[in-house]
Amino acid sequence: MSYRYAYLGPRGTFTETAVRELAQGAEPEALPCGSIQATLDAVRSGRAELGVVPIESSVEGAVTATLDELAIGTELVICAEVLIPVEFALLTRPGTSLGDIRRVGGHPVAQPQCRNWLAANLPHARWLPAASNSDAARQVAEGGLDAALAGAFAADLYGLVPLAAAVHDRDDAVTRFVAVRLPGELPGRSGADKTSVVAFLMDDHPGALMDILGQFAFRGVNLTRIESRPTGDGIGRYRFFIDCEGHVAQARVGEALMGLRRVCSAVRFLGSYPQAVTAAADGAGTAAADAQADRQQDKSDAEYIEAADWLARIRSGQV
Amino acid sequence: MSYRYAYLGPRGTFTETAVRELAQGAEPEALPCGSIQATLDAVRSGRAELGVVPIESSVEGAVTATLDELAIGTELVICAEVLIPVEFALLTRPGTSLGDIRRVGGHPVAQPQCRNWLAANLPHARWLPAASNSDAARQVAEGGLDAALAGAFAADLYGLVPLAAAVHDRDDAVTRFVAVRLPGELPGRSGADKTSVVAFLMDDHPGALMDILGQFAFRGVNLTRIESRPTGDGIGRYRFFIDCEGHVAQARVGEALMGLRRVCSAVRFLGSYPQAVTAAADGAGTAAADAQADRQQDKSDAEYIEAADWLARIRSGQV
Amino acid sequence: MSYRYAYLGPRGTFTETAVRELAQGAEPEALPCGSIQATLDAVRSGRAELGVVPIESSVEGAVTATLDELAIGTELVICAEVLIPVEFALLTRPGTSLGDIRRVGGHPVAQPQCRNWLAANLPHARWLPAASNSDAARQVAEGGLDAALAGAFAADLYGLVPLAAAVHDRDDAVTRFVAVRLPGELPGRSGADKTSVVAFLMDDHPGALMDILGQFAFRGVNLTRIESRPTGDGIGRYRFFIDCEGHVAQARVGEALMGLRRVCSAVRFLGSYPQAVTAAADGAGTAAADAQADRQQDKSDAEYIEAADWLARIRSGQV
Amino acid sequence: MSYRYAYLGPRGTFTETAVRELAQGAEPEALPCGSIQATLDAVRSGRAELGVVPIESSVEGAVTATLDELAIGTELVICAEVLIPVEFALLTRPGTSLGDIRRVGGHPVAQPQCRNWLAANLPHARWLPAASNSDAARQVAEGGLDAALAGAFAADLYGLVPLAAAVHDRDDAVTRFVAVRLPGELPGRSGADKTSVVAFLMDDHPGALMDILGQFAFRGVNLTRIESRPTGDGIGRYRFFIDCEGHVAQARVGEALMGLRRVCSAVRFLGSYPQAVTAAADGAGTAAADAQADRQQDKSDAEYIEAADWLARIRSGQV
Repeated sequence: MSYRYAYLGPRGTFTETAVRELAQGAEPEALPCGSIQATLDAVRSGRAELGVVPIESSVEGAVTATLDELAIGTELVICAEVLIPVEFALLTRPGTSLGDIRRVGGHPVAQPQCRNWLAANLPHARWLPAASNSDAARQVAEGGLDAALAGAFAADLYGLVPLAAAVHDRDDAVTRFVAVRLPGELPGRSGADKTSVVAFLMDDHPGALMDILGQFAFRGVNLTRIESRPTGDGIGRYRFFIDCEGHVAQARVGEALMGLRRVCSAVRFLGSYPQAVTAAADGAGTAAADAQADRQQDKSDAEYIEAADWLARIRSGQV
Repeated sequence: MSYRYAYLGPRGTFTETAVRELAQGAEPEALPCGSIQATLDAVRSGRAELGVVPIESSVEGAVTATLDELAIGTELVICAEVLIPVEFALLTRPGTSLGDIRRVGGHPVAQPQCRNWLAANLPHARWLPAASNSDAARQVAEGGLDAALAGAFAADLYGLVPLAAAVHDRDDAVTRFVAVRLPGELPGRSGADKTSVVAFLMDDHPGALMDILGQFAFRGVNLTRIESRPTGDGIGRYRFFIDCEGHVAQARVGEALMGLRRVCSAVRFLGSYPQAVTAAADGAGTAAADAQADRQQDKSDAEYIEAADWLARIRSGQV
Repeated sequence: MSYRYAYLGPRGTFTETAVRELAQGAEPEALPCGSIQATLDAVRSGRAELGVVPIESSVEGAVTATLDELAIGTELVICAEVLIPVEFALLTRPGTSLGDIRRVGGHPVAQPQCRNWLAANLPHARWLPAASNSDAARQVAEGGLDAALAGAFAADLYGLVPLAAAVHDRDDAVTRFVAVRLPGELPGRSGADKTSVVAFLMDDHPGALMDILGQFAFRGVNLTRIESRPTGDGIGRYRFFIDCEGHVAQARVGEALMGLRRVCSAVRFLGSYPQAVTAAADGAGTAAADAQADRQQDKSDAEYIEAADWLARIRSGQV
Repeated sequence: MSYRYAYLGPRGTFTETAVRELAQGAEPEALPCGSIQATLDAVRSGRAELGVVPIESSVEGAVTATLDELAIGTELVICAEVLIPVEFALLTRPGTSLGDIRRVGGHPVAQPQCRNWLAANLPHARWLPAASNSDAARQVAEGGLDAALAGAFAADLYGLVPLAAAVHDRDDAVTRFVAVRLPGELPGRSGADKTSVVAFLMDDHPGALMDILGQFAFRGVNLTRIESRPTGDGIGRYRFFIDCEGHVAQARVGEALMGLRRVCSAVRFLGSYPQAVTAAADGAGTAAADAQADRQQDKSDAEYIEAADWLARIRSGQV
């Protein structure tokens, strides 16, 4: 079965690569959107079953527009994530040489990722931010820019050539993309899952954040990420985006979320979904690792089930 | 309906007073036993429905024989507790004066509770421990002792008189007694209950005790007592007797006990039962206090039920 | 004495307003810089004593470039902070009406803060990001844009007029700016201070973040903010920017920082400085509030000094 | 140099064995006292430099009289501890056989430690508690008892013989004894030390005990024992005897104690002293173990010293 994907376009961006990766070989029907908000709204309105947006870069950090959009408005849940290596090329019109380049553009987050290369190779070129890397490539094709920082895969799309490859400063830069959809049946447990929520603090007493983290720590649930974002109600008021290991269908995670719910003024569930692994880690050993993770999750649940049985016996007076 | 009570005898002890208090006006059939172990065994074997033993003194601390007996052997559960003020009199044969007293006896814990009075009034008398205060009174009647420290109510039983009343050093000494029975239907929630367990640590890592206490603290369950006792397996190996506020039928307490079960190698449930109040506190305001405690327990459960409903909705994909 | 201030320029931005606020009536010598990095480098190289940059918006959240710059490279410390209300006007050339506006520009963070107004009033105008609001105003003056989102104070600078005032969606939007300088003598205790650090986790065991937060919570030090930023070493690796109440010269805060240092692989100190208050809070009651905060800090230190004296006596054998 | 030891007498008790062990080959001048209180008072009054009393049994638990005496009155500190295996023999007059024994005595704690042996071998003998095992032996010599439970070493003292050896139910029973003295120069760090304190809770809020334990846990200090004792002010009011690993001269331990002091209404220091090891553990590997423990304590201190230096640099403005 094939889904219709909305994604943060235009064509020729890393997000489009994420869509292909998530579709796993199927030829997805893909709908490029002009903004993160527009992408998510396409899912909310039913024009697409899935929406694909970046949520975090290993270099730039949180994609705050994605976080903020997920925290408010009609609820969406994450059903998959994928890690895409971010490798920039310098795209130009055929025949351009480095010495010809006066104006170079790309998405605002592209510039800091290639800062050193630009300083060494194009010290005098002016940087002009564009709505996306692909949009910068389009501007190069149309003559508004001399060069664009973009994925090499975008060259063909606009009749450009990669004048230089791998112009990014760090070799291991990765962006994490998520696929979201309307709430419905949850993805099943894969054996190595992740669960995401947004937590709104009840008040601001000393140790308030400890109380939240303790709900996970005292149940042995590992946090993989915590990200604070302003609520908009003034400096010092935040909501917290929390990713933890495990699936909400697991007893351990479910109980931690219930605890969170009780100590917070509100909690929004953002989904349980299979944890993405980096290409490097995703080799021959993966099946074994998955099996181990699965056993571990099962063991974890067995403990909870045993404790629940024990409590039921006590409550019924059997001790 | 009237129960048969086994209790730590002989007649004329504070434990007998506790039995009367627990029977609340009914004329209980009461079976005095020679030791705490014998009292509990009378319940285990069915010779009595209830067993009444001291568990804690506000002056002497834990009654370790009671704790140890409850932690091992056939399981019993606490179904009630009562606080009895401990007021000692000096009982003698009629006609005895202070100057005549050479040998004074009582239960070993009586002596430290009357230490100052003895030092001031009987500095030269020899202290002779007896199996119980009542047994000391019997020895006085038979001439083996000259005086006994015991409750004034024991005088009549042995034909003695209280030569001096209120010979205890502290006015507010209290002993807590519990009634135990075989496991079965739990006492209902009274609105102000207490739950008791024995926890056996899984291992001895730094912070092991924190992990245990955190199960209560992170769920807002208040501890009223923690008492360590050796397991018998060498110095440094303990089990912990824990009393907390609330009833195992409450969500908050039940979840804390399940958490405890998961982080401990073993947990023995010792009962949920109405919390005793001291005479001083048990005045006109009690009905109101009970109602308030009840509402608080209800509110506490409401939060848990709401969180469980929320989780169920999430798991079923409704967000 | 007057300082030379470097600031995130150009002239006519909110940062320039922050400089004037920080200079408190003095006419500061101010050096506009082209980027946050350039502003901080001006301080590092000695061309300015102080650098002023935005660090956090109540709407947009962390200014990540500032955080990242402070975490790496030559060390700088924050010596002051100020909160500036962010109020946008729509600046145009004289004679322009709403119907004339096809292209509207501003700093990328300006657009989301005025999203609703733009949707309602300029639904068909194209958004063009600029290097700063002031730069957008310059483009309007030069004819490259039709309107700019900027502070009303920028109008005069470029011969523009505010066609509409208060076009921001939220009335209470505030940006927090900090003044940084080279390390040196710390600002004295003001009675209501804040301390900032960057903490690098030692490893990623479950509860690692709890261990960090516990260093503050168990010493009664209140956190005002925690912000995670990627280390650049891949998804899942973060450093944490932590703001807490109090001054590093206080025992409580000093001890918390030492604890942090021991449980982290590295900690960078970012300064102790007087806590900014919002205009609303900064009224008649402030002197009283300051005095109270001061007494509280003193009391807090008194406890630490007393405990240290006690320990010294114990160690010297005086008990 | 040789000290004068007060100890819980009379001669022929396990406490006397502890004195010999603590004197390490020297022939100590030893003063038997009639009670734990009398033993400690002999030190308080200067009649002895050291007082030796039992503090904990691996079978019977805390020796509450010792704990309570150390918590109140003139302060004393523990300067050494020793673990003594508790092995009971049945002492009789020469010529007595098991069938002759009608009355058997000993210290009250001896009976439960030999309960099974007595039930199997002397089911019909009456148990008569004595002030000490040695006192029971004396009564046997004088004809008041037929047999005494006591250490085999007490036989000679009273002209008795061990009719049966090893009559205790558990082979590994151990009693921990401590030597106390007036406060003064602390014992130096041995590389494997223990520190003891008494903590009085400030109030009874939920989590109060967590706050205390956290002072140790968040600084990586391992607790070896926690023992609650009533304050005497009514059921539900306790003080806590805490033993932790390490020496008060160590930074880690000193800081934990200061933290304890700040969160408690009062803390009494009971000493830092070399940790006793059981005979079984005290073999060839000990020197190596000691060296390792020493390095560990040094490393631990090195971290604290480094952190303190770092803080000093920050406070002086050097970052």
